Amino acid sequence: MSKESIKRIKNRIYVIIFKSNTRKGKLFDVALLLVILVNLLAVMFDSVEYYHDYYGTVLRIVEWVITGLFIIEYFFRIWVLNRKAKYIFSFYGIVYLLAILPSFIGLFIAGTHLLVVIITLRLLRIFSIFQMNNYTRQGNILIRSLLSSWSKISVFLLSVIAVITVLGTLMYLIEGAENGFSNIPISIYWTIVTITTVGYGDISPVTPMGQIIASITMMLCYAIIAVPTGIITAEALNQNKGNIACPRCRTENEKESNYCKKCGEKIIG
Amino acid sequence: MSKESIKRIKNRIYVIIFKSNTRKGKLFDVALLLVILVNLLAVMFDSVEYYHDYYGTVLRIVEWVITGLFIIEYFFRIWVLNRKAKYIFSFYGIVYLLAILPSFIGLFIAGTHLLVVIITLRLLRIFSIFQMNNYTRQGNILIRSLLSSWSKISVFLLSVIAVITVLGTLMYLIEGAENGFSNIPISIYWTIVTITTVGYGDISPVTPMGQIIASITMMLCYAIIAVPTGIITAEALNQNKGNIACPRCRTENEKESNYCKKCGEKIIG
Amino acid sequence: MSKESIKRIKNRIYVIIFKSNTRKGKLFDVALLLVILVNLLAVMFDSVEYYHDYYGTVLRIVEWVITGLFIIEYFFRIWVLNRKAKYIFSFYGIVYLLAILPSFIGLFIAGTHLLVVIITLRLLRIFSIFQMNNYTRQGNILIRSLLSSWSKISVFLLSVIAVITVLGTLMYLIEGAENGFSNIPISIYWTIVTITTVGYGDISPVTPMGQIIASITMMLCYAIIAVPTGIITAEALNQNKGNIACPRCRTENEKESNYCKKCGEKIIG
Amino acid sequence: MSKESIKRIKNRIYVIIFKSNTRKGKLFDVALLLVILVNLLAVMFDSVEYYHDYYGTVLRIVEWVITGLFIIEYFFRIWVLNRKAKYIFSFYGIVYLLAILPSFIGLFIAGTHLLVVIITLRLLRIFSIFQMNNYTRQGNILIRSLLSSWSKISVFLLSVIAVITVLGTLMYLIEGAENGFSNIPISIYWTIVTITTVGYGDISPVTPMGQIIASITMMLCYAIIAVPTGIITAEALNQNKGNIACPRCRTENEKESNYCKKCGEKIIG
Repeated sequence: MSKESIKRIKNRIYVIIFKSNTRKGKLFDVALLLVILVNLLAVMFDSVEYYHDYYGTVLRIVEWVITGLFIIEYFFRIWVLNRKAKYIFSFYGIVYLLAILPSFIGLFIAGTHLLVVIITLRLLRIFSIFQMNNYTRQGNILIRSLLSSWSKISVFLLSVIAVITVLGTLMYLIEGAENGFSNIPISIYWTIVTITTVGYGDISPVTPMGQIIASITMMLCYAIIAVPTGIITAEALNQNKGNIACPRCRTENEKESNYCKKCGEKIIG
Repeated sequence: MSKESIKRIKNRIYVIIFKSNTRKGKLFDVALLLVILVNLLAVMFDSVEYYHDYYGTVLRIVEWVITGLFIIEYFFRIWVLNRKAKYIFSFYGIVYLLAILPSFIGLFIAGTHLLVVIITLRLLRIFSIFQMNNYTRQGNILIRSLLSSWSKISVFLLSVIAVITVLGTLMYLIEGAENGFSNIPISIYWTIVTITTVGYGDISPVTPMGQIIASITMMLCYAIIAVPTGIITAEALNQNKGNIACPRCRTENEKESNYCKKCGEKIIG
Repeated sequence: MSKESIKRIKNRIYVIIFKSNTRKGKLFDVALLLVILVNLLAVMFDSVEYYHDYYGTVLRIVEWVITGLFIIEYFFRIWVLNRKAKYIFSFYGIVYLLAILPSFIGLFIAGTHLLVVIITLRLLRIFSIFQMNNYTRQGNILIRSLLSSWSKISVFLLSVIAVITVLGTLMYLIEGAENGFSNIPISIYWTIVTITTVGYGDISPVTPMGQIIASITMMLCYAIIAVPTGIITAEALNQNKGNIACPRCRTENEKESNYCKKCGEKIIG
Repeated sequence: MSKESIKRIKNRIYVIIFKSNTRKGKLFDVALLLVILVNLLAVMFDSVEYYHDYYGTVLRIVEWVITGLFIIEYFFRIWVLNRKAKYIFSFYGIVYLLAILPSFIGLFIAGTHLLVVIITLRLLRIFSIFQMNNYTRQGNILIRSLLSSWSKISVFLLSVIAVITVLGTLMYLIEGAENGFSNIPISIYWTIVTITTVGYGDISPVTPMGQIIASITMMLCYAIIAVPTGIITAEALNQNKGNIACPRCRTENEKESNYCKKCGEKIIG
């Protein structure tokens, strides 16, 4: 095969893998997405006893085949690029490599302790697919909203943690171990479950005094829960206007600003 | 009967059925609404064992009578119109026909598997009544709000699903089958129940490590829940101003715009 | 006693009872508030078996004394006014009379079925005290916010009710009576408990299919719950600006407007 | 040691303790923060039976050592200042003293009833560290938001309390003691648990009538929960603009205003 034809093939594969705005590139992305979803489903179903017992072999073959596909894809990715080293050590280069390794190891060593790593890396792969689309911009706005509200939110969280700690200790003293509030950490866990309105009901106040304090807590958090919402909404509105608040001094700056016009703080854009 | 008098009757019925802004048309709409509500209540009560056993015959007669009324109404609807075929195959024409068929079939074949279809179609009929009123405009604003925030919300949902999957897997590894986290899908179900603050309490963390991770999750979702609220509020504010954000580039456009003034994207109005 | 001195006494009592902006009037209001609160607490504690058994007589005497005070106050209210009939048949005149009657009847006839009436009327009395303060204005803004968002909220509620009905029926068919979803009304109750994120856990899905549908429901309501918040926030912002949206056509009108400048609809101010 | 060298040492310690913007001052703050966190963790773990039984001695030694450090730090704080009396009786001076006393007493008298006091004082110490940083400004904005919405929120809370009381009484009459609604206070506790969407499930309606009323309650609170969010968001938006609403008459004032331009009310800045 002539060097010319190899170069042509390389170029064609390059377009398929890296150019997501072409028809073939899109097809490749969709196929990759489906493979990863099948992979994730296989991992999940393997954790269900019934499927593990009856379809365990099938699920393991699926795992094998997909790991194989990932390895082939990874080598093609490297092969078609000129600046190989740079790509291998880039963020997504490492994610792609790591996405292969755990299931590779998992094929030889039994155990479930790698599951979280596998699933996280697979999900990162999914995000890397969407990275190439215009969805990213919306994500950036969201992250920017959260970042520029961060100093407000951190004060809020610190205060909430303080309130939770005091309330947890109070409930521990009032209710005591015989009503499920066995120790302060458990009491704090209960307070968090209550104040976030999750309310499992695995622990709940029994004494009248405990119920009164629980009631006051819930009523208060009724107003408190509105605070972060208000902060982020105000931020989202600014984003819509195209303004961005300075993370340090909260001065509103124009859309394209890189530094705050008042205090010179770098603005994350 | 002369052709003339038939035409007069036809016209009178047409006004009653189709002209909801006349007095008679309104009365017909209200009567129809009541019949459908009685119908829905009959279907619901029939599912309660006590009523099924003691009033089963009455409920079945109600069903018979109402199905009869629907058939009569459907034939009148077709009869008074000139362009019959067009109406029969229109969206509501099909809904009206389908609204009759299932209860018709249900009269001969026993079974509850058609219930969802029946109830959905009956509810669609109710919506078709309100369709004719000025409520629709408000509904449109709501739908427009949701649509124009869709790209933001989809990024948000994707991220939330990723977080839920990772957290679910983590809790499965930490808590394990002996504490109710039998497999990854169940763990993900628990994570969703927790992160949406529903908190049934059918499954809840028991190990200290599980409770710490659950606590962090709940605290985080405290801030996360504010995100969609902020997005939709910002959108609702724009709607109030009469502005509408471009679904692609988020530029604010005037009330009557059909295409974005910046990027030319079609705006859903 | 001269007619003159009676008139002076009358006037003095009038000031105490009706002029809440004087020092004596304020003291009277506070005293009245305390008496009503003691009354409410007495009614509540009487429902607790322990207090009913051991302090029943004390609580009944408190009830007697307070009813006596209310009767005396009512007669003084009437006595000092010139236009007695008008006051007796005004809204608060009737509330004051009704606030006495039930406990009066309750002294002779045993039974708890009047409790809700008693408590509601006592609370209305508390509101009548605050009515005279500048708190009312804030309450009016709130009510105006809710009223002027009403058409939006009603469309929203109608859609939510439709979704709840369909989901309830679906879960009834999927889960069935053996998992607690005994009939459609109970299923709808479960759907409401879930979609409002209350989540008692008295009924919860057991089958995988039911858990999947429950999960989707909860995720959806995550976005849905943001809708009324957004609507009311947008309304509250308009109120702050002093603008008020027309309840019919949503045009923003100036602060003091009584009729919409566009469609002439009466604006509730 | 010459008087000169003592003064130099005094000055050096003064910088370390009080000047948090110097490198040494920052290190001291971080060290103090860590000591308090270790202290808090020791108190919490001591409440867990397992740690109390096996590591009780270690935890008590940690408590001893840290109390010792606090005493030394307190004396240094007083020693280096010129105006000692003023500092001792200042807010944080008293907090620092009180932060030592309870654990000092706790060393001699056994018992857990001082726990809440200890933890609250320790948390106040943590806040006093952050007091010196620019976080305070954000906290002030939050507090200002809440304060200037207070009159709106208080009307809202009063109405909610009234609704809760009436609903609680109603549910007590409908469900009765045999379904867990033993008395009115317990019923009100259940109503609060429901209306705040916590939903423990320790008490839940059983009768059809009770479930219908519970459903309506939850649906209503769906809209109600949006009210405080809307109020605080509107306030937060004003804060962002730099405007601040007058706590009395709600007129918007410029950023640096100390008194309302309309009614002259003092503005909390």
